[in-house]
Amino acid sequence: MNSKSDNTGILYGIGVGPGDFELMTLKAVRIIGECDVLILPTETKENCHAYNIAKETVENIDDKDIICKRFLMTKDEKLLEESHRQIAGDIEKYLDEDKKVGFLTIGDPSIYSTFAYVQEILLERGKRVETVSGIPSFCAAAARIGISLSSGSDEIHVISANHDIKGTSQYQGTRIYMKSGRKLKELIAYLKEEEKFRELDVYIVANCGMENERVWHGLTDESIPSEYLTIVIVKEKIINF
Amino acid sequence: MNSKSDNTGILYGIGVGPGDFELMTLKAVRIIGECDVLILPTETKENCHAYNIAKETVENIDDKDIICKRFLMTKDEKLLEESHRQIAGDIEKYLDEDKKVGFLTIGDPSIYSTFAYVQEILLERGKRVETVSGIPSFCAAAARIGISLSSGSDEIHVISANHDIKGTSQYQGTRIYMKSGRKLKELIAYLKEEEKFRELDVYIVANCGMENERVWHGLTDESIPSEYLTIVIVKEKIINF
Repeated sequence: MNSKSDNTGILYGIGVGPGDFELMTLKAVRIIGECDVLILPTETKENCHAYNIAKETVENIDDKDIICKRFLMTKDEKLLEESHRQIAGDIEKYLDEDKKVGFLTIGDPSIYSTFAYVQEILLERGKRVETVSGIPSFCAAAARIGISLSSGSDEIHVISANHDIKGTSQYQGTRIYMKSGRKLKELIAYLKEEEKFRELDVYIVANCGMENERVWHGLTDESIPSEYLTIVIVKEKIINF
Repeated sequence: MNSKSDNTGILYGIGVGPGDFELMTLKAVRIIGECDVLILPTETKENCHAYNIAKETVENIDDKDIICKRFLMTKDEKLLEESHRQIAGDIEKYLDEDKKVGFLTIGDPSIYSTFAYVQEILLERGKRVETVSGIPSFCAAAARIGISLSSGSDEIHVISANHDIKGTSQYQGTRIYMKSGRKLKELIAYLKEEEKFRELDVYIVANCGMENERVWHGLTDESIPSEYLTIVIVKEKIINF
């Protein structure tokens, strides 16, 4: 269902994992090495987490055409779509020149990634698009803390904390809040409210696997910078009698 | 929070990804190579998916002590716990001999993995336990199909189809049913009932990344063997006007 065209131009959405370059897959390292062009979803390559991870393992990375594309951050649907179509159009030109293009993303490209928009548009236009999976940041956060996200009948609920979180306290099992950014304070306040009624096990992992990684067990009052990539994991506390 | 002991024995829970050996991380390949003992959660190594994936990349794998441990499959909590304690005890002996022990799991060790039980017991006993994240099978399934699991405000709900799935149709966003096994037919019947009321986009991916991989778009009536590792992804159908 991925390949729809005869020409050799192809777009790869490549997940480089959450931060530690050793969490890149063998496939991501190989495919990035084979690409002619790399698309970074930031303003400059120096500011691109995904680029900084990849350059640790891909030797010839700076020999490639490196194109920075800033994605608009707005909730105006029309402006957003226009911006995505423009970026997809720019990438399409490389595909029409039979180039191998890699779009780098933190974590996994299928989970809250800007790649998804471009993927959809270019698949609609009959282009070849493939995804190379990456380690999602919440898996690495669980590993970092030394907990399991689900066992037995536990469910896992992955929630964008950048949107409406009301009602999410009703979910059974483990909740993972991503993309909190400037809304982290609001999320912590929401969970503090919930803690009045039942015991929770809360972990906050910021910049997992990066140099400035921080981990909190419990709802901290410390102020966490909004540019940190923060994962909040909430489990109901199991009381052992 | 992982290291709690002075001795050098350590247990690694190592995710080898869903099937394609190229989806192993650099870290998984390195750590497996460094282990003295490998624990496989099956009866024989030949039947162990995780071993079969790892042996494609880890050259000296058969020089290691390879120990097969069959985990009891029962809903009897007491029997289950006894079995987990026994396996944890067997592993503990290697740790007390200062061995590096790798426990191989398909996908990621923090998601519905038998490693979680052993991890919990051995952490309680003050042993060194670490998790090496792997690509979850649902990420690879999304990549295989060429879809995104979540964008914008979409939530992702990961559900064990081996347990009660009633009520899961109310979840907004994307649902991922794992571990369906012999209950796959029941799950398909449940989703067929739901389809009477609203349009769903259903994908079924069996043995993702393995030689006998199969993919269905829509609710198939074909009978799928219960030993297949099957991921069912359900999205609400977006109607474009």
